[in-house]
Order: sequence, then structure tokens, then C-alpha cells
Amino acid sequence: MNPILVEAIRGGIRESVHRGAVAVVDADGALVASLGDIERPVFPRSAVKVLQALPLVASGAADQLGLGEEELAVACASHNGEPAHTAVVARMLGRAGLDASALECGTHWPYREPIQRQMAAAGIEPGALHNNCSGKHAGFLCLACRLAGGADLRRFARGYVDAEHPVMRSVGAALQAATGFDLASAARGTDGCSIPSYAIPLRHLAQAFARVGTGVGLDPDHAAAARRLRGAVARHPFMVGGTGRFDTRVMERLGERVFCKVGAEAVFCAAFPERGFGVAIKVDDGNNARAAEVAMAAVIEAFVALDDGEAGLLRSLSDVSLRNWNGIEVGALRATDALRGLGG
Amino acid sequence: MNPILVEAIRGGIRESVHRGAVAVVDADGALVASLGDIERPVFPRSAVKVLQALPLVASGAADQLGLGEEELAVACASHNGEPAHTAVVARMLGRAGLDASALECGTHWPYREPIQRQMAAAGIEPGALHNNCSGKHAGFLCLACRLAGGADLRRFARGYVDAEHPVMRSVGAALQAATGFDLASAARGTDGCSIPSYAIPLRHLAQAFARVGTGVGLDPDHAAAARRLRGAVARHPFMVGGTGRFDTRVMERLGERVFCKVGAEAVFCAAFPERGFGVAIKVDDGNNARAAEVAMAAVIEAFVALDDGEAGLLRSLSDVSLRNWNGIEVGALRATDALRGLGG
Repeated sequence: MNPILVEAIRGGIRESVHRGAVAVVDADGALVASLGDIERPVFPRSAVKVLQALPLVASGAADQLGLGEEELAVACASHNGEPAHTAVVARMLGRAGLDASALECGTHWPYREPIQRQMAAAGIEPGALHNNCSGKHAGFLCLACRLAGGADLRRFARGYVDAEHPVMRSVGAALQAATGFDLASAARGTDGCSIPSYAIPLRHLAQAFARVGTGVGLDPDHAAAARRLRGAVARHPFMVGGTGRFDTRVMERLGERVFCKVGAEAVFCAAFPERGFGVAIKVDDGNNARAAEVAMAAVIEAFVALDDGEAGLLRSLSDVSLRNWNGIEVGALRATDALRGLGG
Repeated sequence: MNPILVEAIRGGIRESVHRGAVAVVDADGALVASLGDIERPVFPRSAVKVLQALPLVASGAADQLGLGEEELAVACASHNGEPAHTAVVARMLGRAGLDASALECGTHWPYREPIQRQMAAAGIEPGALHNNCSGKHAGFLCLACRLAGGADLRRFARGYVDAEHPVMRSVGAALQAATGFDLASAARGTDGCSIPSYAIPLRHLAQAFARVGTGVGLDPDHAAAARRLRGAVARHPFMVGGTGRFDTRVMERLGERVFCKVGAEAVFCAAFPERGFGVAIKVDDGNNARAAEVAMAAVIEAFVALDDGEAGLLRSLSDVSLRNWNGIEVGALRATDALRGLGG
């Protein structure tokens, strides 16, 4: 039974609780700290986009197409579908000689409601560019461009979301190398954007992020790619999320000292390069904004040296005042002592 | 530790789980069935709006003001803020000689995203009428009209959300009588719409709904009021929720055979009048749409006799196919065997 990581308080009592597990591991796989079951395989979903973007850089595709840092950052993103995001993704596709019609991620309205309303007020319907995964998919298509060699790109790229396509095989190989987990024996599901997601234990996910943060244990091409992707995200944190988003807010403030990335169903991974640690969190009930973010904020507080201003930001994210529609404080959403004690 | 009520499946494995507790009780308080801890007090939030509306009818206010069934139904609602809802609430306030400026529930955009987008496209900003609780608050103001006697209504009604205001004292007395739980000793929180919410064990909440469904154990005025409110909701189920909402869909199909009402933080109460049972559910993590609704659908399946068409609807709500943005089936959200076995 996993422990309670986050509690919602109202009227002085616990109204709701979120259980989960946390692994903090170094690049050699040594366990630094943990809570709950970190051996059960979980689908990392979008939390591992930076691992899935390693071949884009390591293959030489990014350089061949002249991708800039904004493009590299959006390749690691679950973005809000704001105009800045869709513009960069469209530009990236253009570098490969493609457009949004090549994307196989599907279409959805941006998750963030104010952005939906802005679009509706402007008469804009969503397309594949607005899909939060469109940057990752544009990265896959740029990788396809490299892998296609002289072949017809549109024909080569078709079906790139399939696990057996050369693009997805390259992506899977990078994921397996970074996590040290045999994907052939892993449970495989289909992600929201139609690519495969492999169930991997938190212990392995955390180790992969320690490797991303340090380069230790990655082959030299992947280590260099990880360093470049982290730098791109640190300098363009808006690209990885957008207005009001946790990952964007944290990395705008902390730069390269934290790389963090949320995934669907409340998986959250991070690298703390200064410490050499990687982190992986899964909240049992799959609630992202309510629980995984609060938990990640507390883990950052526990393991990353922060100045007063930084500490204030992180505390506002791990101990959140809840106000009602009249602005009255009605409770709080906060990390439990069990989670706060993780840093020892 | 509460058992798992609902599981989210992907790639053949459990991706996320929702724990919680369920009480099924008759009007005399006899326990019919239960799972998990039903003695721990929980904030019922909007799940008890029908109990909070009892004084509106029992006091004679509804008759004095000539309220119709749509008005009575919306007084029990957590509505979508669709035009039909705001029109009825505005009409109801007009009967009391008031308008939206008297509402103390605060303002929010309707929760349902397509309705937000329709409003944004039409250039409509939200007001207090769009608050999901505006019908309940209009009911409070109609009750205030009765309680004010000859006094100036606007002055009398001001601050009606306060626990010590005559309106809220009347509402609290009805809640205490129906649940048989001493509110003076209960933990008290402030709800999203600023009225008090009292923490009450699921066992007591379920008994209150058995009483609402049967009249047994209520004083005659409250029993008659409960019958009238249930009938109004059964004939106007759109008013209690709206497009696509669980409560609306279930009651459109089952009419007076089920009265069900969701509340914030995944509390869900229901009355099954034919069986004489009341139900109260709390999902530990507070996730409504994902968990409390799936759980309630399974409890209805377990305890209410359904024809094939009805059974098909309920099964589609308790075993939900999950599809991704390309329409590919990627998993399911479903009630666990523990929950399905509740009916014996």
C-alpha cells in the first residue's frame, strides 16, 4: 500500500488524499530515497519525452535540419497549444518539408480552459498542431527525415507511431538504453497520441533521469543530446508547457538546476543535475495537477538547494492555499510529512 | 484502508486506481451493504442539495412564490450554466423580487468546456447565474423571502450564507434531522459557494437518502417536500445537471426510480425508493467524473432492477471504454469486482 503523498484539507480535516510512490536514484542505480512501491511497472506517458527526443539529436537529424533551441524544447513538451507553441511546431515541420497533415497525434482542444476560450472567441478550431504532443511528433518526423535517407519522406514517415516503424524502434531503443529496462518484456499500452507506452518501474525511470542530468551511463551521443535538450528547455521553458504550467514556472526560476516533466496519469520525472539524482513519481489515482505537481514541488524542496525566493515559489506549489469562488480561503492542498521527510 | 472501487486499465494492466467507501442503508439505519470506512465524517458538499432544499418547500416558500417544478429541480442542482439553467434561476429570483445581484455564491465559468467555448464565441462573460450552485442559492433566497415576513428582503437576506443566518439555520436543521447527525459537534468547512459544509459519516448520509426516498423517519412536512423535490427532478433532470452530465443521463432514463446527486470531491449520494435504500459514496482522492460516477453506476446496477436498455446505459457508465485522440481504444475505466459484489 503506497503512503499518502498529498492531502486536501478543509475545515481542519482531511477531505481527500492522494497516495503514491517516489524513487530518487543516482546514475549508477543506487537508491537515494524512496516511498512506496517503486518496483511496479508504470506507464511513464509524457514524462519521458526528453528520452524519446534523444534520437532526434543523437542521429544528427536536428543539425541536418538546422533546428534551434525552441524546436528542441518543444520536442520535449506537453504544451498548451498557445500561438507560440503551434508556430514553433509548424516551423519545425517546415524544416523537414512537411506540414501539420503529417502529424499522427490526433487533435484536441488545449487543456487549459482560458486558451480554449481565447480560441473560441477568435473563431479558431483546434488542429493537430494544438495537440499537446505535436512538438514531440514533429521531432519524430524530423527523425524520420534523417532515417528516410533518399526515400520519399511522406511515404517513409507514414505510420511512424507504430512500435515497429524505424522511428519508433529508434525511440524505443533510446528509452531502453536510458532506463536499463527490457522493453520487449514490458507491458505495452497505447498513449493518448497513439505511440506505444511501455510500463517501467519508477526505480528505472528515476535512474534514466539521473543519467539525463549527468550523462553518466549514457553513450556519448545520447549524453551530448541530453545535455543539449536540457539546455534548450532551460532557456525556453515556455515551450515545454506554457502559461501557468508547473514545469514552465519551475524551470523559468531554476533553469538547468532542475529538469522536470509531467506525464498523463500523474507520472512525474525529474533530473537534479547538481546532485546527480533522478526522480520518478506516480500518484496512484492519476491526478496530475492536484497531486503529482504538489508532490514534485516537495521533492524539489527536499533535494535542491534553494535561495529564499526560489524556496517561496516551491512552497507555494507544495502547500497550496485553496480559495473558493468568493476568494475565501477554504483549505489547502499540501505535501504530507512523509513526503517532506524524504530528503532526510 | 479503503478498497479499490474503480480501476483505469491500459495495455492490460492497472494504470491508476481509485479507493473509497460505500454505504447502503435503509431508512431505519440498518446497514444493507458497505465497503470501506463508512464511519469517518466526510464533507458531503453538493451531494446533499436536495436535503438543503427541504425547507424551501416545507416552509411554504415555494408555494407562496408559485415556484414550478423546473425551479424546484434547479434548487437541487449542480448545473452546467447552460442558457436553460440560468433562465430558470433568473425567473426564480424574479419571483422573490430579486435578481442575480442578491446571489452570494460567487462567479465561475461553467465547468463543461464546450459550454465555456460557446459562451466565449458569443462574447458572454460568466456571472453568478452561471455558478453551478446558483439554483440552490436562489432557493435559499426564496426561503429568505418567507422567513423575512414583512421585513425588507434585501436587508434580511444579506449574508444568508453564514451558518448563523436564519436561512442557513433552517437548512442546517433539515440536514441534521435527515441525517440524524449532530451538526454542532461536526467539523465545519466552507463550501465552494461559501455556505457551511458539515462533515458527516457516509452511514448517516446514506440513511438520510433512504429517508428522502421513502419519507420514513422524516417529519410529514419534510417527507412531503422530499417527494415533491424528487418528482420535480425526475420530470426535469436536465435542470439538475445538463448536457452530458451523469445525474441528468441516469434520471432521464430511470425517472423516480433513482434520485442521485454528485458533490465536489467525489461524494455521491442516491436514493433507490423502490428498494427503500439510500447510498453514499466517497472516493478517497476526490475525483468525481473519473471515479465517483463509475462507482455510482455500479451501485445502481447492483441494487436497482433494470431492463436491458437501462442495463446497457448503466454498464456504459460503470465500464467505460477509453479512446485516444485518434479514436483508438486504449483502455477502460471500470468498477472493480469488490464494488460489483456489493449487491450480494
